[in-house]
Amino acid sequence: MDLTTILGLIAATLTTFSFLPQMIKTWQSKSAKDVSYIMLITFNIGVFLWIIYGISLQSLPVILANGVTLFFNIIILWLKIKYR
Amino acid sequence: MDLTTILGLIAATLTTFSFLPQMIKTWQSKSAKDVSYIMLITFNIGVFLWIIYGISLQSLPVILANGVTLFFNIIILWLKIKYR
Repeated sequence: MDLTTILGLIAATLTTFSFLPQMIKTWQSKSAKDVSYIMLITFNIGVFLWIIYGISLQSLPVILANGVTLFFNIIILWLKIKYR
Repeated sequence: MDLTTILGLIAATLTTFSFLPQMIKTWQSKSAKDVSYIMLITFNIGVFLWIIYGISLQSLPVILANGVTLFFNIIILWLKIKYR
């Protein structure tokens, strides 16, 4: 694996798992009023389209990274609705 | 331009500009206490590495999408520090 690929994998891991602390924070504080609904909905639709794009390209990294990102962000959206 | 490329461009536009309403919301409410610091910092480092990855691949879409995303998220982080 070359350096560029390793760099891309580190980047993908960081941007994907950055939403885990947000999910935990929202879960614990039971509040997400400062998190924008428009952001969450637009972001989730965009990430869903990234998954379709990944399937179309048969790119497992794109599918996996966006699948995990969508999972975290759907839970964050659900928590925001639950604790509104 | 084929359908897959158009799909990827729509996905990139949505995930990139989803942070604009978050930035505006934080600016107006002067509060981002529900937004996780660990999320913002991890995400910004990840997006910065995506830009380096894009430069390494000479991929203008990767550089542009992540450049705009980094711009919005550095401002969100700055607003969170400012209004803490």
